Amino acid sequence: MDKLLRIDLGRQMIKEENLPEAWQKYGGRALTAAVLRAEVNPKVDPLSPGNKLVLAAGLLAGSGVPCSGRLSIGAKSPLTGTIKESNVGGTAAQRLARLGYRGIIIEGKAENGPAVLVVKGDGAVLELRPQLAGLGNYQTAARLLAEYGPEAAVISIGPVGELALPVASVAVTNREGLPSRHAGRGGMGAVMGSKGLKAIVLVGKDGVSRPAAQPEQFTAAMRAWSEGLIKGKKALTRFGTAMLVNVINGIGGLPTRNYRQGRFELAEKLSGEELEARATARGGRTAHACHRGCVIRCSNIYHDEQGQYLTSALEYETLCLLGSNLGIGDIDAVARFDRLCDDLGMDTMETGAALGVAMEGGLLAFGDTAGVEELLKEVGAGTVRGRLLGQGAATVGKVLGVKRVPAVKGQSLSAYDPRALKGTGVTYATSPMGADHTAGNCLPGRGGLDTKQAAGQVDLSRQLQIISAACDALGVCIFVGPTPDNVDPLAQQLTYFNGNTWHERDLLELGKEVLAMELEFNRQAGFGPEDDDLPAFFREEVLPETGTVFDLPQSQLAEVFSDFFRPGGSG
Amino acid sequence: MDKLLRIDLGRQMIKEENLPEAWQKYGGRALTAAVLRAEVNPKVDPLSPGNKLVLAAGLLAGSGVPCSGRLSIGAKSPLTGTIKESNVGGTAAQRLARLGYRGIIIEGKAENGPAVLVVKGDGAVLELRPQLAGLGNYQTAARLLAEYGPEAAVISIGPVGELALPVASVAVTNREGLPSRHAGRGGMGAVMGSKGLKAIVLVGKDGVSRPAAQPEQFTAAMRAWSEGLIKGKKALTRFGTAMLVNVINGIGGLPTRNYRQGRFELAEKLSGEELEARATARGGRTAHACHRGCVIRCSNIYHDEQGQYLTSALEYETLCLLGSNLGIGDIDAVARFDRLCDDLGMDTMETGAALGVAMEGGLLAFGDTAGVEELLKEVGAGTVRGRLLGQGAATVGKVLGVKRVPAVKGQSLSAYDPRALKGTGVTYATSPMGADHTAGNCLPGRGGLDTKQAAGQVDLSRQLQIISAACDALGVCIFVGPTPDNVDPLAQQLTYFNGNTWHERDLLELGKEVLAMELEFNRQAGFGPEDDDLPAFFREEVLPETGTVFDLPQSQLAEVFSDFFRPGGSG
Repeated sequence: MDKLLRIDLGRQMIKEENLPEAWQKYGGRALTAAVLRAEVNPKVDPLSPGNKLVLAAGLLAGSGVPCSGRLSIGAKSPLTGTIKESNVGGTAAQRLARLGYRGIIIEGKAENGPAVLVVKGDGAVLELRPQLAGLGNYQTAARLLAEYGPEAAVISIGPVGELALPVASVAVTNREGLPSRHAGRGGMGAVMGSKGLKAIVLVGKDGVSRPAAQPEQFTAAMRAWSEGLIKGKKALTRFGTAMLVNVINGIGGLPTRNYRQGRFELAEKLSGEELEARATARGGRTAHACHRGCVIRCSNIYHDEQGQYLTSALEYETLCLLGSNLGIGDIDAVARFDRLCDDLGMDTMETGAALGVAMEGGLLAFGDTAGVEELLKEVGAGTVRGRLLGQGAATVGKVLGVKRVPAVKGQSLSAYDPRALKGTGVTYATSPMGADHTAGNCLPGRGGLDTKQAAGQVDLSRQLQIISAACDALGVCIFVGPTPDNVDPLAQQLTYFNGNTWHERDLLELGKEVLAMELEFNRQAGFGPEDDDLPAFFREEVLPETGTVFDLPQSQLAEVFSDFFRPGGSG
Repeated sequence: MDKLLRIDLGRQMIKEENLPEAWQKYGGRALTAAVLRAEVNPKVDPLSPGNKLVLAAGLLAGSGVPCSGRLSIGAKSPLTGTIKESNVGGTAAQRLARLGYRGIIIEGKAENGPAVLVVKGDGAVLELRPQLAGLGNYQTAARLLAEYGPEAAVISIGPVGELALPVASVAVTNREGLPSRHAGRGGMGAVMGSKGLKAIVLVGKDGVSRPAAQPEQFTAAMRAWSEGLIKGKKALTRFGTAMLVNVINGIGGLPTRNYRQGRFELAEKLSGEELEARATARGGRTAHACHRGCVIRCSNIYHDEQGQYLTSALEYETLCLLGSNLGIGDIDAVARFDRLCDDLGMDTMETGAALGVAMEGGLLAFGDTAGVEELLKEVGAGTVRGRLLGQGAATVGKVLGVKRVPAVKGQSLSAYDPRALKGTGVTYATSPMGADHTAGNCLPGRGGLDTKQAAGQVDLSRQLQIISAACDALGVCIFVGPTPDNVDPLAQQLTYFNGNTWHERDLLELGKEVLAMELEFNRQAGFGPEDDDLPAFFREEVLPETGTVFDLPQSQLAEVFSDFFRPGGSG
């Protein structure tokens, strides 16, 4: 039976606990939500020792099910003040599950940090590593892997996390041992940094899968589903998420110059096609898997002009928010920004949005590539300007007096203009996480809706948010598609894997339960349905390329989860 | 019957309304609370056109009752996110009442501001005055008084208000026509600035008092009370509020170097005695009344070394927060800071606290007088550093990563260390306004308690908060003492003035009603009893001079107004 590892950094105590009966059905985001609901005061200062950082593997972690390697990282967010879960690929979730742990709960604060937690097959130890203080993620991972073996998984923060700035991410190493996978959203790196924890090392090898309860049925179900994914996701495999640059630019929803436009004149230069051409010509690659068993392989390895490794998994959101959003159409420049962000440990989305607002506020000019690079370094160095940027878009907007701030509940939107993709706009406005596309991304084609129509988007967003929450509980990457057709195959595989019967409706109930726990946490933190809205400028300014504004009334947004707030209700 | 003046800046509409029957008993803070509760969405962005700025004269305004000239200014606060009322002396409240208005409600936003509202005996007009943009309060008042006559009352904002920075105050002219009286707290100047309103001119002369319903009894009651005040407040008259420097330093509660100490080695140089000596030697004065009919006359006129007017009403809180709190023991320097703050239009308390946090964060050194002067100017100029400081202490602390931030609900404490004055600490923690001493200041001697003892402070704070709220509704300056012995005399004078019978208990009920309205607004804005607490460092760090920490448990603080939250309850 899976265990919980509880670490009290203040007392330097490590405790192994049985997973409570009521939480047996929780993995990933369901477990982070349950722990936070049960153990954290929703009014706690997110950067105080009273907050907890929870890491959780999904229910399917280590099973061998394709794309089931997401690690959920949760805490009360210093960016939003809400509950937060940000999940990440790489090798950590599978390793954690194979070590026999469903999750790790980090409490308190290491007084003489930075501390490193090392988890092995036979237990865990806490170590103080002053020599790691201030190091970037790349050096941190390299040093720890040199010590614990190249197949260990490293979860770490960079200097921005040590500074506890709300843009800080948590890095996870990929199969090559590079800290290129990031739980970016909501400042989970800042929470980790506030606890004086620099890294977690999960020791062990990329081993065989955990045994299934019903191996034959499991293998058959897994194989069938796997084949469907391989066939259905060819563009994602070939171009990575960057395939979306042309798609979203095409429909006029590519955030450009802080949402002044929805189409970027240099979008082609940031496209998946451009990425594939440069990556392959320079010795990098697309079709790269961030963890074992992924059949979609949307990741990539991107080298610089000299053919030297530069960064990994140059993603759509990064290309947009650090590219078109800043008026920068140079993919190599964005790749350098991405590497800097990964190394310093900061969310490329929040950082890009904050830079867009800073440009709007006159701190630097749109298109100023050198200025961006300098300012990113300042975040890591902790200058006043850098610390300001490190607070994220909302605070930058507040301080600079910018009214056009693309953020909901303090978290920046990701790379989909809600005037062109209204369903994603509904998700931004209503997700318990603040603006977050991964909570329920209403991409073109989903639900059979025109993304620019208002009708039907509330229902679609709600449906995708429930399925996404279920996927996050399973640890399944949403790139399989958080869509109704995937629910039954996932329920089947889970049934055959763990031996308990899961039906489609059970998984949907799990998704609703996750949302209900999160919404209740937020309610106690001071948030209600009236906070579910987009910034006014999306209602007031017409997006030139589509001629649309975001026109779903707040009353409809407030209704998305209203039944979760009724006594006994959970949707 | 008193009227309400409603100004829609967006539509440039001016409307005169009858005061609704239910609001007849509301003046000052009671009226601002009632209007905000009835008309403003508690979740509104405080700097958006949906917020309203409410100015209200007290029930006794213009009556001739001593010290009844406070003007309440209310809105949802951009500093705290709570409801806010900040009241101010000077000539505006009496003038407003004599013009026949109980209050002014400012809505919307002037698109081509800055606008000026001119209120005369025969109505009001809105004017656009681009030539006033960016001017300090001193020039603004001088130009408007030149135009409308030296006896007009001017309510204005400086450049910091125009920048809509949350430290921005609203200035009111004194009897000499100088904009030296400030509604400092909670960023009311930012709300005014966000509406594109630069100033309000109340035209007219410092006329006779409004007639009382029962003149003979009124005059007798007023005279008796007046004589008591004159006798009882001699030190306040002679030294101004600066008399508190030695008192609070003496008990070890004078915030010094961002609350590292409670006694300042140079306190003598900031004292009331020093102030009186310098003011009188240079041609200034103490015993100055900020409005007609004040018998306490705690204000002062402070000249520089050359004998030129420098500033007026150099107050205790300013001397402490821009003096001892910054390690600066030079009263002339603090007077220059005060003038700069008054002219730029910023709260000396929030500004001083923010500077203390900035010093703690290394932005400048404690004692750096030139650095402070430079940074104050930067706030007015809107540089990045200036704009950051202009957000107030909490945001400065957040951005600079400072943990010792003396603020509650985003508003800085005023000049009483809550470890040495625990009752005032209770008020800081629980007032609906964020940390605010004027909401219920448990000074030495009040309630017969040792300020350092914990027992009894919850009850004392609650009692003084209720009486203070009643005083604020009457428009009576709390320097008369928000103490039980003053309630009956005030009820009597109000009875004889307006002809309705008010008993002591009615005034106390009014105070409770004010608090209940404010707490309900805050509840809907997302605040609850669990938010009523002081920063952790006051519980963790012993104040060296007293050997005490703030030790009232949060559960007790949460109880202060708990009965207001029960159905039907209002204390």
